Amino acid sequence: MTRSIVFLSDFGYRNEWVGICHVVMNKIAPESHVVDLSHGVPPLDVRAGALLLSDSLPYIRHDAIVLAVIDPSVGRDRDVAVRTGDGRVFVGPDNGLLAPACRVAEGVAETVSITSPHVLLEPVSPVLHARDVLAPAAAHLAAGASFDDLGDAVDPESLADLRLPEPSVEQGKITCEVLDLNRFGNVQLNVRTSHLAAAGLDQGDRLSVESHSGKAVVTRVSTYSDLAEGEWGLMVDPRGWLSVIRGNPANAAAGLGVGNDDLVWLSREHD
Amino acid sequence: MTRSIVFLSDFGYRNEWVGICHVVMNKIAPESHVVDLSHGVPPLDVRAGALLLSDSLPYIRHDAIVLAVIDPSVGRDRDVAVRTGDGRVFVGPDNGLLAPACRVAEGVAETVSITSPHVLLEPVSPVLHARDVLAPAAAHLAAGASFDDLGDAVDPESLADLRLPEPSVEQGKITCEVLDLNRFGNVQLNVRTSHLAAAGLDQGDRLSVESHSGKAVVTRVSTYSDLAEGEWGLMVDPRGWLSVIRGNPANAAAGLGVGNDDLVWLSREHD
Amino acid sequence: MTRSIVFLSDFGYRNEWVGICHVVMNKIAPESHVVDLSHGVPPLDVRAGALLLSDSLPYIRHDAIVLAVIDPSVGRDRDVAVRTGDGRVFVGPDNGLLAPACRVAEGVAETVSITSPHVLLEPVSPVLHARDVLAPAAAHLAAGASFDDLGDAVDPESLADLRLPEPSVEQGKITCEVLDLNRFGNVQLNVRTSHLAAAGLDQGDRLSVESHSGKAVVTRVSTYSDLAEGEWGLMVDPRGWLSVIRGNPANAAAGLGVGNDDLVWLSREHD
Repeated sequence: MTRSIVFLSDFGYRNEWVGICHVVMNKIAPESHVVDLSHGVPPLDVRAGALLLSDSLPYIRHDAIVLAVIDPSVGRDRDVAVRTGDGRVFVGPDNGLLAPACRVAEGVAETVSITSPHVLLEPVSPVLHARDVLAPAAAHLAAGASFDDLGDAVDPESLADLRLPEPSVEQGKITCEVLDLNRFGNVQLNVRTSHLAAAGLDQGDRLSVESHSGKAVVTRVSTYSDLAEGEWGLMVDPRGWLSVIRGNPANAAAGLGVGNDDLVWLSREHD
Repeated sequence: MTRSIVFLSDFGYRNEWVGICHVVMNKIAPESHVVDLSHGVPPLDVRAGALLLSDSLPYIRHDAIVLAVIDPSVGRDRDVAVRTGDGRVFVGPDNGLLAPACRVAEGVAETVSITSPHVLLEPVSPVLHARDVLAPAAAHLAAGASFDDLGDAVDPESLADLRLPEPSVEQGKITCEVLDLNRFGNVQLNVRTSHLAAAGLDQGDRLSVESHSGKAVVTRVSTYSDLAEGEWGLMVDPRGWLSVIRGNPANAAAGLGVGNDDLVWLSREHD
Repeated sequence: MTRSIVFLSDFGYRNEWVGICHVVMNKIAPESHVVDLSHGVPPLDVRAGALLLSDSLPYIRHDAIVLAVIDPSVGRDRDVAVRTGDGRVFVGPDNGLLAPACRVAEGVAETVSITSPHVLLEPVSPVLHARDVLAPAAAHLAAGASFDDLGDAVDPESLADLRLPEPSVEQGKITCEVLDLNRFGNVQLNVRTSHLAAAGLDQGDRLSVESHSGKAVVTRVSTYSDLAEGEWGLMVDPRGWLSVIRGNPANAAAGLGVGNDDLVWLSREHD
């Protein structure tokens, strides 16, 4: 059986870049299903893509070929295929995008640089390796090619790394940062419930949330509809991150005055 | 043969919610085609989604599993699978979204609440049942599972209902409302040509269209290009609804001063 | 084996038009993969769609059925299926959209008008032939139907033509026009590197770019990241067209004051 390909990028749908990669893969591996995980990653935001990929991994078929393309330095980065310790296969630029997912998947077992003339679509456009290098490589793997068919082995130690920011956890206080905002102004923090427990902040319903430009007292809730209009809440989002939210139509990001990467402090609210 | 899945939601494409449902279904039912009907339903607009689904049913394979997700009360609604009188299968929240399509499909023959631990992806996120409950259920059905595999039977009478607004038809006059506007300002009314005939308004080319804030005289046309710039027309849209339109670049909704749910009156234009 | 269908339109994703065509094709040809090349062609822009299709042809499987729908005169244009000299199959409106791709594919060998009652979905909506005529035709072809099954043969000579604008090339000077802008303000010109060579402008690194409202001196570069903020460059885009670009966040289109179809002059920059 041919394998599925799971495809992730920051291309959006305004031009044909997603589609041209699809037709390229369909040409090489016509029996494979290509499943779009998302093409809405903020443009050039390698960290957001890396986070989405590692968070999504448990939901992705183990035998799928994962094609990930977010590449601010396209034409300068090496293009690689990676086999992980637990047997997953990733294809993407060597810029750290794949690193967090590789850690989740028991590290890198084997990697090759995609250079074989049998794989590349010549002339390779320096601005669209997705079409001419990465998509063909993913499709050949889905159709049964081996790593050797793609190019020469590369030392896994030489791959670019990317570390996600970790919150600083003390007793009663967490210093963290904003990972992302969504279109409703929800503020995704780099904090999981395990961090709350480590700081002793998992007891009680109310916490204080501070940024450099705002402060709010939030109630722990489990879903949006637990909040009345304008009320502040702290919720575990579907990917497991704590998010500061407000009851419709209020906007938590605006209320706290924060954007991506800004610092936020969580602490006990004293009544 | 595995069955196709037809997928409808209000998720849009900015985040990964559509995609994560796709990868979940691909993991469970790798041979199934997942066909996106639309993810552009206005956010949380159950009625618009219900209408789209019931209007689209004749075009959908009879043996497809239909997965529909528009769920303003996610985490509080029951999640159900429904088999209709004519043998179609729908999966979605029990909030009325499926009700009009069920009526078109000869009513509800059988329904189950999706609760089986073999189907749910634990931990179920209270804010994304689509990923953890509904998509897995649709995929298991597509791959051959039975209703019994999903959970316990539910009394079809207990399902939430949703009635679409009906126009009020008198001789020479129809009181109706705006179902939706599109991006060009076309005003979709809850009126079909059968209503026009019942009101005796199907003879002659011109009708009067009134709202609380505007009035226009419209000409019956069959397509956009029948209208010169600024001219008003009344057209049957592709889903069978009468729509008030204006020749490019004029905007019918702006001209009438109407939005969704506003009242509109159709009557004979007296020359 | 059933054949893939490659689908291109200007429908966007806000309403269900792309999706309703997908479910129609899935109903007729459930085994076929439908691959979306793009639905982001600017609305009603036949030339942009024609250009995208002809540029993309080398990447598309030779045995795929290509379904292309950009149809400002829907309901008035003939709907056709075309077999090209090199054996490709296209389905679309007869308005020139397919013409440039046909030339790339060794011309038109055979064409039929899609009129068979076995293919049309009645009642055919005058505003959505994509759903009721074109998508069914593409799906029947993918599932094995012959051209004869679709309708009557049409004289290939009677098909609408569409010629893309050619630049005017003199020694040391090219008069060209803007094909398209992208969201970053890149200015795509109707010039390929072969035109530069013909004008003797392929030597040296710097060229002058003039429009009616602006002028810039550009450096030949191979990728975006070769430019510092605000710097002007001339790059071959992934589809082979020369594009005027500027280093982030500057906007080349704004700097030159140009939009689609505007004239641009390339010449030697005298130091």
